[in-house]
Amino acid sequence: MTRPTLKPPSGTRDFLPGEAKFRSQVFSTVRTIFARHGFEPFETPAFERLETLSGKYGDEGEKLIYKILKRGDKAASGEADMALRYDLTVPTMRLFSHRRNELPRIVKRYQIGPVWRADRPGRGRFREFCQCDVDIIGGGAPLSDIEVLLTLSDALEELGLDDFTIRLNSRGALRGLMKAYCLPVDSHAAVLTVLDKLDKIGVEGVAEGLLELDPGFGAMSDLVADIRMSNPELALRSRIQGTEEGRDGIALVDSIRDRVAPLLGSQASIIVDPFLARGLDYYTGPIFEFVAKGGFGSIAGGGRYDDLSKLFMKEGVPVCGGSLGIERIILLLSDKAANKPATRSGCYVTVWDESNVEDALALCRRIRRKGLIADMDVEAGKLGRQMKLANERGSRLVTVQGPDEKAVGEITIKDMESGEQRTVPEETVVAVIEDLLR
Amino acid sequence: MTRPTLKPPSGTRDFLPGEAKFRSQVFSTVRTIFARHGFEPFETPAFERLETLSGKYGDEGEKLIYKILKRGDKAASGEADMALRYDLTVPTMRLFSHRRNELPRIVKRYQIGPVWRADRPGRGRFREFCQCDVDIIGGGAPLSDIEVLLTLSDALEELGLDDFTIRLNSRGALRGLMKAYCLPVDSHAAVLTVLDKLDKIGVEGVAEGLLELDPGFGAMSDLVADIRMSNPELALRSRIQGTEEGRDGIALVDSIRDRVAPLLGSQASIIVDPFLARGLDYYTGPIFEFVAKGGFGSIAGGGRYDDLSKLFMKEGVPVCGGSLGIERIILLLSDKAANKPATRSGCYVTVWDESNVEDALALCRRIRRKGLIADMDVEAGKLGRQMKLANERGSRLVTVQGPDEKAVGEITIKDMESGEQRTVPEETVVAVIEDLLR
Repeated sequence: MTRPTLKPPSGTRDFLPGEAKFRSQVFSTVRTIFARHGFEPFETPAFERLETLSGKYGDEGEKLIYKILKRGDKAASGEADMALRYDLTVPTMRLFSHRRNELPRIVKRYQIGPVWRADRPGRGRFREFCQCDVDIIGGGAPLSDIEVLLTLSDALEELGLDDFTIRLNSRGALRGLMKAYCLPVDSHAAVLTVLDKLDKIGVEGVAEGLLELDPGFGAMSDLVADIRMSNPELALRSRIQGTEEGRDGIALVDSIRDRVAPLLGSQASIIVDPFLARGLDYYTGPIFEFVAKGGFGSIAGGGRYDDLSKLFMKEGVPVCGGSLGIERIILLLSDKAANKPATRSGCYVTVWDESNVEDALALCRRIRRKGLIADMDVEAGKLGRQMKLANERGSRLVTVQGPDEKAVGEITIKDMESGEQRTVPEETVVAVIEDLLR
Repeated sequence: MTRPTLKPPSGTRDFLPGEAKFRSQVFSTVRTIFARHGFEPFETPAFERLETLSGKYGDEGEKLIYKILKRGDKAASGEADMALRYDLTVPTMRLFSHRRNELPRIVKRYQIGPVWRADRPGRGRFREFCQCDVDIIGGGAPLSDIEVLLTLSDALEELGLDDFTIRLNSRGALRGLMKAYCLPVDSHAAVLTVLDKLDKIGVEGVAEGLLELDPGFGAMSDLVADIRMSNPELALRSRIQGTEEGRDGIALVDSIRDRVAPLLGSQASIIVDPFLARGLDYYTGPIFEFVAKGGFGSIAGGGRYDDLSKLFMKEGVPVCGGSLGIERIILLLSDKAANKPATRSGCYVTVWDESNVEDALALCRRIRRKGLIADMDVEAGKLGRQMKLANERGSRLVTVQGPDEKAVGEITIKDMESGEQRTVPEETVVAVIEDLLR
């Protein structure tokens, strides 16, 4: 028999308790903040009908969908009928369309859960990864966009990532830019892709990237000239405002910025940035991205997508939403947390010998009834081995009751953190443990 | 364009906030109790290599595995290389075998998460459903079995399902039974399947089922005669104890029962039941099932399976574990919960008009900073519509600040539960809201 491969499938991860608990704390914080802002949980299945997901994510996305083979006799056909969800947005719009008449006029939903993409795995890029989304469905006014921005800001702040800049732009402003510089329609998507790279390739990189597009007749020269100015944002902005659509688009995001700015933490800021593009196809109104200072890049993003719901409903509803880049955030936070010493918790109840089992079980029960963690030795082997296991398991306290102690009704408690040891009467032992653990 | 199907795939479920929150509370309770008993979270991916799962679940199980098509150019082959996990046990043993050297000698792990089986859907039977498992890996002594039983008991009690009977048996006792009645080897599996149905088909049903098996030479007659006695459990027990293996098996579960019984809640009981079989292949030692009174059937089960780890490791490790039938438990609990009125929560901040937006945003922020739920109207439409939405969303309080109130620095708070209304100064409004919501 050949030994089976023991690693998890490429791009997926196992989590042992240390990591699993850390992740669960992060999710719990996010959930609490989302709830505090009036968002409520939606949940959808891990897989959807293939037709529900097909044609929603562009040609590149389509290739990354995990497809599930038909079952039973139909498996032999090699055909797929289901697919693992690729994001949480499309399934949510399906669910909303299905159950709309059970829901209030304006729905504020969040969902935290894994999605699957058969992408090339790499550092911080996985095939199974979590998304944390908030969306306001049914609210067309900019107050919805503001609420989404404040919710994500508050979540990041609560996670200790309060040092970020929100970059804000809008589809209207981008359309204005295209018009202002008279760029040919078939170059729009490529131009936006290049502009969006400013952070990574710098001003000169963007300028060169645009010139390389070369749609003829020197179409890029005005735009490139403005980008090479000392304040390209300002130069672009004033050109954009020369068009009606651009003027409205900029005014909208300016007003959002003005309302969000005074409510941010002292380390955070919000700017209108005409370079921000974020995947053209999807969004219809304001778009945004949260950039962590210190070169960590984007940690959240989102925008308004008022047309997506039309895929499932005759009449669409306005939707805006945002998503925390939670896998990257967890990476940032665990780098920070790695410097802190691991904390010990709970009480390990050793078992002296077979005659001590009932007492040990009863003590465990008393400790657990207080809501505290009690771990009992299940082997009743040598005390040294039990102490070693308690230490490996990260127990804070260890109790021992040998025959001498039993005779006088006492129990010894050892504090594995300080090394201190004390012997107390059986009646008060739980109170002492409670006192030490809280 | 044809409208797409909006229902979730057959056998899977969407959860709107009411249900999602209820489920999440149940899981949170279970997690707390598992942790209190010294179990720690393990997490494994949603899918595994197909070879990891193949051949582990018997012929019937094999057919129910969801297989994932190869990606990219290989998709056209119609071949699968991955599969959605069918349970949490096999992936856990893979993970344990892979990372054993990072883990303590005895590992107490829990995992709560979905598994997928292409089973025929029905009431309480789903294709995507949650499992809640605890396992002690590396502990061969019966204290591990006892700890698992106490953990599941405590979880059920904490969930308010304290009215159950634990049925306990062991593989050794079952082997003793086969020997005691001289049953031919090729009938063993079928006999156990019939015995296991006692609860559903009654004594006479079991007797008839056994006679139908008819392995010749009246092989079943002694067993059937004992089953038809006034106390069949006692009759079987004394026959089983006539074999060495049976005697040891019964003694083991008797000792487990004696140690568990005094630690159970007053409504719960534990019995040794020679009829309990629980899928022959898998288990090697004690086996158990929790049966809720009132005809609800099995709500938890488990046992010792010391050989499974050998599929992944040269030398196996002893393992025992148990699982809550959490989907059935949620069904039972939500039937109970359906009689209670829904509770309202949080504060809905209305927006009088555009000039009131900044004040409303600031008030929301102040309420949220207290850790309370605040929901802001994002449309600033007519007040009546806002009140209606607040009501639909289940808000407990609603604040209103019209121009007159603004002029004198006051805000009105309406309690949607009692209908009471009060007007308070801006400075104290958050304190009053906090007082009302806590």
